Amino acid sequence: MIIDCHGHYTTAPAAHNDWRDAQLAAFATGGPVPDHQVITDDEIRRTIEANQLRLLTERGADLTIFSPRASAMAHHEGDLAVGIGWARACNDLIARVVDLFPETFVGVAQLPQFAGEPVDAAIAELRRCVAAGFVGVNLNPDPSGGHWTSPPLTDRYWYPLYEAMVELDVPAMVHVSASCNPSFHATGAHYLNADTTAFMQLLQGDLFADFPELRLVIPHGGGAVPYHWGRYRGLADMLKKPALAEHMMKNVFFDTCVYHQPGIDLLFEVIDVDNILFGSEMVGAVRGIDPITGHYFDDTKRYVDALNLSAEDATKVYSGNARRIFPRLDAALTKRGL
Amino acid sequence: MIIDCHGHYTTAPAAHNDWRDAQLAAFATGGPVPDHQVITDDEIRRTIEANQLRLLTERGADLTIFSPRASAMAHHEGDLAVGIGWARACNDLIARVVDLFPETFVGVAQLPQFAGEPVDAAIAELRRCVAAGFVGVNLNPDPSGGHWTSPPLTDRYWYPLYEAMVELDVPAMVHVSASCNPSFHATGAHYLNADTTAFMQLLQGDLFADFPELRLVIPHGGGAVPYHWGRYRGLADMLKKPALAEHMMKNVFFDTCVYHQPGIDLLFEVIDVDNILFGSEMVGAVRGIDPITGHYFDDTKRYVDALNLSAEDATKVYSGNARRIFPRLDAALTKRGL
Repeated sequence: MIIDCHGHYTTAPAAHNDWRDAQLAAFATGGPVPDHQVITDDEIRRTIEANQLRLLTERGADLTIFSPRASAMAHHEGDLAVGIGWARACNDLIARVVDLFPETFVGVAQLPQFAGEPVDAAIAELRRCVAAGFVGVNLNPDPSGGHWTSPPLTDRYWYPLYEAMVELDVPAMVHVSASCNPSFHATGAHYLNADTTAFMQLLQGDLFADFPELRLVIPHGGGAVPYHWGRYRGLADMLKKPALAEHMMKNVFFDTCVYHQPGIDLLFEVIDVDNILFGSEMVGAVRGIDPITGHYFDDTKRYVDALNLSAEDATKVYSGNARRIFPRLDAALTKRGL
Repeated sequence: MIIDCHGHYTTAPAAHNDWRDAQLAAFATGGPVPDHQVITDDEIRRTIEANQLRLLTERGADLTIFSPRASAMAHHEGDLAVGIGWARACNDLIARVVDLFPETFVGVAQLPQFAGEPVDAAIAELRRCVAAGFVGVNLNPDPSGGHWTSPPLTDRYWYPLYEAMVELDVPAMVHVSASCNPSFHATGAHYLNADTTAFMQLLQGDLFADFPELRLVIPHGGGAVPYHWGRYRGLADMLKKPALAEHMMKNVFFDTCVYHQPGIDLLFEVIDVDNILFGSEMVGAVRGIDPITGHYFDDTKRYVDALNLSAEDATKVYSGNARRIFPRLDAALTKRGL
């Protein structure tokens, strides 16, 4: 079984995005928020079958851990109430995808977050979504959208959310959204910077001493981290932290959203196979075909397959690690006899 | 000949740092800025001989392109006038190091920059330093120190500085300083994020169409960029830019400040050897000994040597590229018969 840990509903029906526009327009003018437009099951089926399901099948994966479009979370827009409404709408749409394709998609929730506001609304949405069968959340370390005004992930500001995550046994993928800072291109800078930043925040702190059960997936192959693994080992030493394996790597995991063979080779050379989850970020950041290989940049399964991992390691990367880190997914699959 | 393109005077005499403290205290209180304390040639000799010169010799390099301590530039402190005074003091100290060790060090200047202020002061200091024999500058793309309030490097805000650089035929290393944003550890996040961010800004824009002669070195092995080279090739395609080799790589160069063998292997696998300059960031970000190898993390020459480059390629990485990108260095070396 092959589980893609990182997929987004980037192809949601236009009516969904139209509602978002209307919601933000209402916020700007102080007018009433319009009702959701009706989106039929057929519309959802079409957007999935023509995109994620097609590509998943073509590339030979079985199941995607599926969340709302990351760049559209845009936690910096509006206020917390706007974010609550938008997160509910996005997550409800994910729930419908999962209902329509229960064998192929499992839900991960967008959280309502707003810089400077407490995390209570995020916890409430987490609980609502887990009750509906979701198995994880996307946690934005910078809800300001590129201004980085929130405290580091090791700050007690985040602790109530971590407590709920541990109680419910769900992990988070640490994933920023769009950038409203012109310095940062979203998928070319802000995403990777956030991955690097989150890792270093965790290295500087001792979060997992307080939350030994907390599990965080850092996407996009860990940002700059594996490429600079020597720097991080050295910094841990300079900051008088334990070795990274002990300090962080029972709790921190990287996906394989690295879009060329040399990058995947490096990832697997320096990071323990127990810490790597197959992912493609599909349909996502880079949609084109690599003229060098003739294959899609984001067809990351090709790169992983080319490693010729042992059967045991391949099982870890393709399903075992995901089932371990997302226990609610594991339980659901076990119930299905998988 | 082996040229290290990235060294900082991190070991400057205490009196230099004491003056900085006094300068900032005077700014805070509105009092007079104290005179510089006398620093003797012997003090400078001692700080260099015990550190940079010793390590350079031990590791088998010949010359360092040397600039003030990057993390202490702290452009966000004080105001522009404070930055002008501090840049002059730092650069004058570099000039003294170069005078004392003319065969081993060549100067690169710190620029006075302040977010929101024009770049005129930076241009004036650039001209002063080049007249004194400096061969390049360090350009901070985020003088706010982690708040990223300045326009992207492709913005016309920076153009007068680029015009002066082209006129004087000096390149810049794009190098941030300390972070005053608690989200970002300086050497573990802010530095690498800035490298990644700068590259993506250049990818999004068309700066080198306006300045075909401009040369920018992105340090720390290019941040996250080589590890995600497939992503950047794909983003160039999505943004309808030419291929990276044509769009950027006549003007953008990476150093080898990547502190483990797999990272250096990747860098040389994906980046053309004409775009890589040997550098160590020494004495710098990570000062310890790698328990795995028994050698200093930042002894990057070991990693490059282990590549077994052809003689031609090794010459490019160790000296040829640096001489091409820093023509004033090349002229000085040629004058010395080197």
